[in-house]
Amino acid sequence: MRFIAGGLRDPSPWSIVNLMVQYSQQQVDLTFAALADPTRREILERLGRGTATITELAEPFGMSLTGMKKHVRILENVALITTEKSGRVRRCSLGPRDLTDIQRWIEGYQRMLDERLDRFGELLERTKGEKP
Amino acid sequence: MRFIAGGLRDPSPWSIVNLMVQYSQQQVDLTFAALADPTRREILERLGRGTATITELAEPFGMSLTGMKKHVRILENVALITTEKSGRVRRCSLGPRDLTDIQRWIEGYQRMLDERLDRFGELLERTKGEKP
Repeated sequence: MRFIAGGLRDPSPWSIVNLMVQYSQQQVDLTFAALADPTRREILERLGRGTATITELAEPFGMSLTGMKKHVRILENVALITTEKSGRVRRCSLGPRDLTDIQRWIEGYQRMLDERLDRFGELLERTKGEKP
Repeated sequence: MRFIAGGLRDPSPWSIVNLMVQYSQQQVDLTFAALADPTRREILERLGRGTATITELAEPFGMSLTGMKKHVRILENVALITTEKSGRVRRCSLGPRDLTDIQRWIEGYQRMLDERLDRFGELLERTKGEKP
């Protein structure tokens, strides 16, 4: 992570931790934004079945190469896909990153909602038991 | 879902299904976009601990009421939060919607990545067994 070393004015362990937290929070923001488009979600699903060139990705969407390149760049920026150029052809594949961080946040949120419902249920039970 | 009935020119079961798929896809897009902001994710976490007014939500962020209202509206549009006005005070709470649809898409994606890794592993094993 070269940008951390470059941006580091106070090289204490805490400032490194803070920069890393900031970096990962920004990654989460950008990943949610990258997934907020149905074309980009379909690109990921398509690449799950094997690598593809920009042309092969654009074709089923009836999309221009310029349009598809924009989507690919957004996914590449959050490391959800990797591209490799060989001659005039750019081939796309999944990775190196997966969605573990996003999955963790959502699971935490859903768990919190469940616990809230449980507490609400317990409260109802207790209220029922009380004399009017 | 009033907009479905209003937008329906061909009232066959398939056009209803198509409109519902479109509606739910758009909901997924808007939900990912709503979650792409750290303030909005923190608002959801805060409301998990109990309801809050716009003023109570704005305060810890040092944010203007107008700024907070914008975030609240975006979360309200995807039904992740509900607001209720009583007098001059608007109180926010979680729901009625949760993140089950988003969670399902992400779990499907992660599962696909795992299966891909498994297939790659099997291929490596088979290649190792072959005579040079």
